[in-house]
Amino acid sequence: MTRFALTIEFDGAPFMGLQRQSHGPSVQQTIEDAAHKVTGEQVVMHAAGRTDSGVHGLAMRAHVDIEKAIEPFRLMEALNALMRPDPVAVTACEVVPDDWHARFSCVGRAYIYRIVNRRAPLTLERGKAWQVPQPLDAAAMHRAAQALVGRHDFTTFRSVHCQSASPLKTLDRLAVRREGESVLIEAEARSFLHHQVRSMVGCLALVGVGRWDEDEVAKALAARDRSALGLNAPPDGLYFVRAIYPDI
Amino acid sequence: MTRFALTIEFDGAPFMGLQRQSHGPSVQQTIEDAAHKVTGEQVVMHAAGRTDSGVHGLAMRAHVDIEKAIEPFRLMEALNALMRPDPVAVTACEVVPDDWHARFSCVGRAYIYRIVNRRAPLTLERGKAWQVPQPLDAAAMHRAAQALVGRHDFTTFRSVHCQSASPLKTLDRLAVRREGESVLIEAEARSFLHHQVRSMVGCLALVGVGRWDEDEVAKALAARDRSALGLNAPPDGLYFVRAIYPDI
Repeated sequence: MTRFALTIEFDGAPFMGLQRQSHGPSVQQTIEDAAHKVTGEQVVMHAAGRTDSGVHGLAMRAHVDIEKAIEPFRLMEALNALMRPDPVAVTACEVVPDDWHARFSCVGRAYIYRIVNRRAPLTLERGKAWQVPQPLDAAAMHRAAQALVGRHDFTTFRSVHCQSASPLKTLDRLAVRREGESVLIEAEARSFLHHQVRSMVGCLALVGVGRWDEDEVAKALAARDRSALGLNAPPDGLYFVRAIYPDI
Repeated sequence: MTRFALTIEFDGAPFMGLQRQSHGPSVQQTIEDAAHKVTGEQVVMHAAGRTDSGVHGLAMRAHVDIEKAIEPFRLMEALNALMRPDPVAVTACEVVPDDWHARFSCVGRAYIYRIVNRRAPLTLERGKAWQVPQPLDAAAMHRAAQALVGRHDFTTFRSVHCQSASPLKTLDRLAVRREGESVLIEAEARSFLHHQVRSMVGCLALVGVGRWDEDEVAKALAARDRSALGLNAPPDGLYFVRAIYPDI
């Protein structure tokens, strides 16, 4: 048995999410089905994160265990050929030790959320960003975001479907910056609750348009109540960008 | 009558091209139909360039003449509302003098061509770039490109369907650079022949992968023969980025 670490890029739009679902296509099923065709084995993929329907991956990490003797480059090429035309690609593949686990060895996860702040509807970036027509004050959003950094009970920013044992998480970084007509929000933590990034972005957008004062983000956090959430941002603008491992 | 200058962004994928066609949807028809709904008038749009099927626009310029009294901002908002869900958006709209002509007043046009140079298939950028799996030498491509800059007979790089009266054109700039896994080609001229940018990019890609020596681009140009063309690059990677006017 050989364990292969995969780096995966995908367009989340046509999928029910990364994780296998009974009610529709998933990134996991697409990769596992291709791996089955390559090896004849029932391959199970473990990923660093479980992204929602519509959320994109730039460099998701995952691993698969395979009995058949195959070079990493050949495995990558075969998976990519078999997954066409689904918008999933393996961009890197390497052999890792048997105790390396894409999910449990991962000590950090980073997301980026992309808002396009303009009146005109999206064309080339449709499904790839959240269009907000009202002018956003990115500096105010950044200041308000700092109340969320650190170890907190994130119940307000957690989906009712969240399966995490505890709402306590440590948010390492939440930074907002403007680049032309884009407003980019970067979030880093060891792990996130279900919908946490989208919930934080939604509230920051309310600050950005002036509907919330900056200190209302801190108040929503302190409420520890999902009904205190201002807005859950759509999945279109969310990208899983990086998984961090101690030894890589 | 008021003349409005429009700045237009569009995803070329679902269109037969910018110009109205009898055999399928076009950007022109989409905008003219929306303008008709707004004004009740038979509005004709004139654009700075005529892009092919699948070619994208980041900031195409165009003009329309309208009898109805309407503010530019209202016209832009109404057009954008009526064009949904087609991937066309008016990103700017202003009143211009009656003798300002989007096509005939335009003294410069700029395109960018985007290659993604990697083995893995495209996912998020599918239809938005040309994927070239073999490693490209962008520096060699840039050197070879300089043979095309200047005033030349571009017959080799011209579609058989080109309607231009003369194959003589002056290419002001053709620059190739690498940005990570992308190779970007910028082309600027007063005007271009049909398929000229894609034909030049195709030959430069042959240089990039080493199938053509650098001087073969100059030889192909000197041949003044379409059959000397190495390769016509696909429309997916081509973007109209800028139209230049003397007074703007």
